[in-house]
Parts: sequence; structure tokens; C-alpha cells
Amino acid sequence: MPTTAIRSTEMPSSPIRRLVDFAIAAEKRGTKIYYLNIGQPDVHSPNEFWTAVANPGVKVLEYSHSLGIAGLRDAMSADYKKRGIPVEPSELMVTTGGSEAVVLTFLTCFDPGDEVIVVEPYYANYTGFANIAGIKLVPLTTKIEEDFALPTTEAIVAKLTPKTKGILLCNPSNPTGTVYSTAQLKEIAEVVKQKNLFLIVDEVYRDFYYGTSELTSVMQIPGIEQNAIMIDSASKKFSLCGARVGFLVSKNKDVLGGALKFGQARLAAPTLDQIGVQACLEKTPATYFEEVRAEYMARRDILVKSLAKVPGVVVPNIEGAFYAIVRLPIDNSDKFCQWLLEEFSHEGQSVLLAPASGFYMTKGLGANEVRIAYVLEQDKLKAAVDVLAVALQQYPGKV
Amino acid sequence: MPTTAIRSTEMPSSPIRRLVDFAIAAEKRGTKIYYLNIGQPDVHSPNEFWTAVANPGVKVLEYSHSLGIAGLRDAMSADYKKRGIPVEPSELMVTTGGSEAVVLTFLTCFDPGDEVIVVEPYYANYTGFANIAGIKLVPLTTKIEEDFALPTTEAIVAKLTPKTKGILLCNPSNPTGTVYSTAQLKEIAEVVKQKNLFLIVDEVYRDFYYGTSELTSVMQIPGIEQNAIMIDSASKKFSLCGARVGFLVSKNKDVLGGALKFGQARLAAPTLDQIGVQACLEKTPATYFEEVRAEYMARRDILVKSLAKVPGVVVPNIEGAFYAIVRLPIDNSDKFCQWLLEEFSHEGQSVLLAPASGFYMTKGLGANEVRIAYVLEQDKLKAAVDVLAVALQQYPGKV
Repeated sequence: MPTTAIRSTEMPSSPIRRLVDFAIAAEKRGTKIYYLNIGQPDVHSPNEFWTAVANPGVKVLEYSHSLGIAGLRDAMSADYKKRGIPVEPSELMVTTGGSEAVVLTFLTCFDPGDEVIVVEPYYANYTGFANIAGIKLVPLTTKIEEDFALPTTEAIVAKLTPKTKGILLCNPSNPTGTVYSTAQLKEIAEVVKQKNLFLIVDEVYRDFYYGTSELTSVMQIPGIEQNAIMIDSASKKFSLCGARVGFLVSKNKDVLGGALKFGQARLAAPTLDQIGVQACLEKTPATYFEEVRAEYMARRDILVKSLAKVPGVVVPNIEGAFYAIVRLPIDNSDKFCQWLLEEFSHEGQSVLLAPASGFYMTKGLGANEVRIAYVLEQDKLKAAVDVLAVALQQYPGKV
Repeated sequence: MPTTAIRSTEMPSSPIRRLVDFAIAAEKRGTKIYYLNIGQPDVHSPNEFWTAVANPGVKVLEYSHSLGIAGLRDAMSADYKKRGIPVEPSELMVTTGGSEAVVLTFLTCFDPGDEVIVVEPYYANYTGFANIAGIKLVPLTTKIEEDFALPTTEAIVAKLTPKTKGILLCNPSNPTGTVYSTAQLKEIAEVVKQKNLFLIVDEVYRDFYYGTSELTSVMQIPGIEQNAIMIDSASKKFSLCGARVGFLVSKNKDVLGGALKFGQARLAAPTLDQIGVQACLEKTPATYFEEVRAEYMARRDILVKSLAKVPGVVVPNIEGAFYAIVRLPIDNSDKFCQWLLEEFSHEGQSVLLAPASGFYMTKGLGANEVRIAYVLEQDKLKAAVDVLAVALQQYPGKV
């Protein structure tokens, strides 16, 4: 029997998947589980999407252009411009979800063995994408005590080696909910410019911003036009995770040209979903976003307020996305999350949380933190936190 | 300005794309172009697909499971079993097109630097997938004079090095239309078993078989259950190229487990397209395939008959898919294909062909061959060959 590759053996499997199996087992025992582990919004996808895919106006579902259908590229560019983000249709490529945009960026910008600094805690799948591309992620740690703010320029520069080719962050951040200020982004841009690096910013949560000042895109920072790469997606924006439509945006022609060459090999992103997303961009009323944003903001407020009452819980400032990394008075979050599903229930209920260790590359970090995705309706979210509070009293490993 | 990766610079861009630009320019000059270069069938996608995606029964388009939706996996397994191909639902993973199935196979089975023997001429995008995975493709040449039959076992064994980990072929073949006999497949299976290699067979053209005996799948060859990997797709089967739904099939648990880990990082294949393809598998009447097959068989017959009348043209035996590699009495097919678009027209018409050099890895091969995709209606196809015949008389580089 032939053996599979070393990189396949070394590829981490999803730590959450194991917990999901425990959750399913708990449900079979009759326990109600609140799922706070995943980034799948419960908001329904816009009617404009469903209408467009039901009436696509074609009889053959053909390959689209490898860059994406022209109408969608125009509509996305128009959406950016409306927000003051200067992006021409020729400066973006439609990808199969934001995931593919990251993979194509890695393949295009970095060679095997190159180093990319990633702000941790970070979206765990970046590890998988780095494994696919054979590049090395180097963690730049941010701390809950500092609301996960970006470290100083000195701390960033200290991470650079001759192999460093880029910096990657997510803004608003999955998993922390942190939003980086314009001043912070400009500081990091200065490093990027001086050291000739790519700056990749994953902005798929742009529409989930609860602050009062303007949210700044990497495409709005002057002087780094050739360094900046923006990752975007329709998944969260339109609650279309299953549509697999994302965007790779850059003014650097070598980046887009290179990504296109890799993209030609895989032919194209799904055509019908592109047609649907184009309709969403052109026709979804502003009220859709206002309602979604108001709903998530209310959920964030409930989460923060409820958690603040639980003794020993540390909740940082959360300004965007729909996640929070919170510190719990426990010995080990992997153990705690499993205990919640295997041994605990309160009035027939328990919760599924994501241990934060999976979002850190630095060993040992996140051991007393969990990620909470506040993707449940407000009353369910409140109930879930109540269950968590009881669990924290009963957990044998509390500290 | 930061520079992109070496692998990006070295990634070949599509040679056809350049020609398409010439074709567009010719059309602007008023020339009618017959497009014989692409594998986009003109057959319309099944009504069952359009009905299913218009009535998906959900309001939120969620991520599907990383392995694909259960109903689709069941339906595909049932389709295989009906054809005598023993595949359980647990032995297949839904991928984002056949393209992703090849990439995931490469990532899972091979490490950077590993060698995979590929039967040439071969589907040009395999080069791109190999570049993504950092593996080396080693060509095993087949010849038009031998109807592109597989070489002898000795010739295959002569290509093996300590780094060889697999063999890749396409059956029925894009770009040659060759169908490998059961005896040929068993010979190659013997090598694979003895040398402990993976055998990857791309079978996306299974439904386009015009022979009389049974078409044999790699999954039907006894004794190589742990070596065999089948690539499949809904693209050609249901004329759903734009749906991006493919399949990676293997009984080797390490292969499917590894592919799943890479697949979890990219989350899932498009949900709505999966729902549509499931409906196609469950409900499309047998007459759909019979009509499609009869139509393509008629096209093949017209192509072969028309080309046979053109002096100096060599047409091999073509038993499947909808492509042919044919030899023309010319000096250089790259030059000829460009000349067709830039300098030639006959009664205001010309043709776009794919130079065969792009389907060979061995330098110099295919220089007097082109790939013809017979994806046009019968009368158009006939007209296109007539135009080609006139062009061959006028071409200054004829031999």
C-alpha cells in the first residue's frame, strides 16, 4: 500500500470537528447544545440572490472567465468605491470563496520556505493554506489584556528575517473581533514599505463593524499600493457561506497576473453563485445591512454584558466581526470544552465553544481562552451564557 | 515594490488565451470564427438542475460539510454502482470541480519534489496543479501512429526513479480521445502494485464513450484498491462546467482522510450546485445521456470522415471524450494557429484550434499536431473542417 505525503500527515485536522462529535453524542443523550463554535450566520441570504439564481437567463451553465464574470467584477468595484475604497474592476479577481483568495495569494507572492508574519490569535485555516503553499507562518502575538491591539513597530521589526516576505492580518478580526485603527494600520504600512513586504489584509467581516469612526481598508492606506492585497468574500456580507464567492484585490499587476495563472488551471469560480452575488451587490437594499448590523451589534452587547457578570471572565473590547476571544477562570480550555459536552449539563443544556489554543501558533497560549461566535438569536445567546456561568462554577478544573 | 514568487513567474500562462485574443481581433474585422479550442459543451444542462436550484428549500445558503452534502454523496455512489463501479458514499469526497480533486490528490499523496508519471499528450492544466503542489511530472509519451495506446510495461518501468510515487492518466483521454482497454489498464495496474505507486485516473469523460465494449474504471481493477484514485466531475456529464462540482474517489482511507484535512481548510464545495447535481443524479432520465452520446458520436464521425478527405491529415482512432489530436501537414502548429486568425480567412470564416505543443511536456513534440474539440453542431463542424482544408492549401508553411 503506497503511503500518503508527509505534508498530508502533518496537516492539522480541525480541532473543532472532534468536539462536534461530542456535541452530537450529547444531543443523542437528550442535551440541548448551543453551538457557539462556528462562523455560519443564521441571517437569511438576500431575496435578490434567490431570485437571480432561479432566473439565471441561461440554459447551459458554462465556465465563467477565470477572473470572474465581468458584471460581478464591475458590481464589486462599484461597491468598494461607494465606501471610498478605490478599486477598479481590473484590480480584482473573483475566487472560490475567501479561502481560495488566500491560497492564490500565498502561491503567487511566496515561494516554499518563505516566511509570513501573522498576527495571532488568527483564523486557524491560515495554517492549512500555508501548508498547501509550503510557506512558514511566524506568529506576532497580541494580548487580551491589550484588547488584542497590534504590537509596536519595534516588536514587528524584531520578527523579520531575510526570509520574511509578507505580513497577514484580519480586520475586523476573526477570532478576536478586534478592529485596527487607521493609525495602527499606517504604522504597519510603514514597516511594509521600508522592508518591501506584501501586506495581506483579510477584510471579509467589513460589514460587521460596530464602532463609530470609519473602518479603514488596506486599499485606503497611501504609499503601499504595490504592497497591499485585500481578501474579501460574499460569505459573511450576504450570509452566503455556501456560495463560495470571494475576491482577491490588488493594484499590483504581478500579483493579479500571477493569481490569474494559478486561477486559469482551476478554470473558474462557480458561475451561478457569481450571478447571484452580482444581483445582491446591485439590488440588496441598504436596510438589509442595517438590520444585520443592528442585530449583531445587539448580540455583541448582550454577550459582553452577560459575560461581564460572570466572575473571573475577561472580555476584551470587541468592535467587529461576530467573534470574541474571552478568558475563563479554568485550567485548560481544551479539557473544559470537552467536559462541557461529555460530563456537564444544566437543565438539560450545554454549550459548544472553540478552545482558543487552535487560534495560536505559539505553544501554550490560549490555554485559558475560548472563542465564542455570537451567531445565535439574542435570547438563545443569553441562555447560552447563563449555562456557561453555571458550568464555570461546577468545573473541577476552575482556577 | 515587493516581487512575486519564482513559482508564480514560472507558472505557464494559458497558450490558448493568447490565441483567443487573436480570434476576438479577427471577429472585429468581420471574420466568423469556429471555436474548436475549448471543452465547453453546447448541450444544455438538465432541467432537473435548474428546477432544483430554483427550489433549494433553504433560506440561508450555508456551508456544506467539507466532504460534500450527504445526499449528493449517496446519489453519486448509487450512480457508480449502477455502472458496476463499486464505490460507497464513504469512499468519495465532493470537490470544487475535478480540478480541485486533482490538486487535493497531489497535495495528499505527494511531497514537494516527488515524481508522478503522466501519459502525454495530457490535459495541460495538470502542469499547473503540479506547480501548485511542487511535484514533478515525468512524461510517458504516446504516439499518434499507435493511436496513443499506452506504452509497454518495460517503457513505463524505464521511467521509474526512487522519487516516483504515482502514475496519472485520463480515460477517456482529454486531449486525445483515446480509451484504454481493460488489458492495458491491468498491465499498468501490475506496475503500480509491484512498485507501490498511486494510480490516478481522471475519468471525467466517462459518459462520452463511443466504443462497443465496456468502459473500465480504475475502481474496477482488482488488486489495486489501495493504490487507485479516481477523479470525477459533473462538468461534462451534465454540461455543468460552471457548477464546479467534482469528486475525489478512493478506497484508501489515508488518501480520503488527508484530502479531507486539506478540504476542511477551504471549508466546502458550493452548496447550491451540489443540490443541483444531486437532483441531476437522482432524476435525469437515461434518454438525456443517450441523446448527448448519440450527438457527440455523430460529431465524432463527421469530424473523422471530413478530416480523412483532407490530404496529409492523420486522424487516430478516437473512442471517447470530445477531443482529437490530429496531425497536419504543416511546419509548426503554433504558427499555423496564429496564421489562421491573423492572416487567413475563407469566405469570411476561420477556425480557432489549440496547438498540440501545449499538451506535451517533451520539447518539440506536437509541433505538427493540433487539438480539435468537437463541441459544435454537426453542420458547423463540417463547415469548420472545410475551412481548415482550404487553409491547409494556402498556408505558406505547409510541408
